[in-house]
Amino acid sequence: MLPYQYILIIGCGRLGSILANELSSLGSNVVVVDRDEEAFKGLSTEFSGFTVTGDAAEMAVLRSARIHESDCLLAVTRHDNVNLMVAQVASTVFHVSRVIARVTDPARERVFRQFGIETVCPTGLMASALLGAL
Amino acid sequence: MLPYQYILIIGCGRLGSILANELSSLGSNVVVVDRDEEAFKGLSTEFSGFTVTGDAAEMAVLRSARIHESDCLLAVTRHDNVNLMVAQVASTVFHVSRVIARVTDPARERVFRQFGIETVCPTGLMASALLGAL
Repeated sequence: MLPYQYILIIGCGRLGSILANELSSLGSNVVVVDRDEEAFKGLSTEFSGFTVTGDAAEMAVLRSARIHESDCLLAVTRHDNVNLMVAQVASTVFHVSRVIARVTDPARERVFRQFGIETVCPTGLMASALLGAL
Repeated sequence: MLPYQYILIIGCGRLGSILANELSSLGSNVVVVDRDEEAFKGLSTEFSGFTVTGDAAEMAVLRSARIHESDCLLAVTRHDNVNLMVAQVASTVFHVSRVIARVTDPARERVFRQFGIETVCPTGLMASALLGAL
């Protein structure tokens, strides 16, 4: 069991759906948000959380996803700007205690960190993995 | 010094340029191929390798990038299909001894492996990094 009660995942693409399936199977309460209802097809039949269709850049959507009850938010859409915005709102407006954002552009990681947002960068992870393999 | 004489990198996006800069600084002979000449702007001023502008799906381009002299090829464009094709050609036609391809879709990793191609998957790496962080 993870130390989080309610985990909110923004973006149900390949990464978001893997995380949602995995965290749900670990027993966490998971809510996943995506603009595109089709995206939820990536969720497994065992997924026991909730889905919310809508643009996470809108406060009303975040509220209906019960962001105020979440203690962990993972912003993992393909859009760095959306991830940054949602992560900032989660952190500063809703005081979500753990916020992590996906940032594709390594140059933007600094900006995220200036706002106190934890980041994971696929480019950096890939470069390390490849250089480590050689 | 790495155990490779000539490293050929296909794709000079964010990942390709990081690899090219890093491997070049480690003293390897590096050739980078990209369709878009603008992409080479991501290379550092210290980069001491060669650049080839062209579509790596064409044999002539691979030949002008001296694939026959390469002992390591990293296929890291954003396009899984291009990476798969180039990796296969490198491995089967030019007998490049070490071939690694970037695959974004985890479902495709199996296909690559069936062809004996080593893969790195950003989605899988990100999921592990995020789950590990929680």
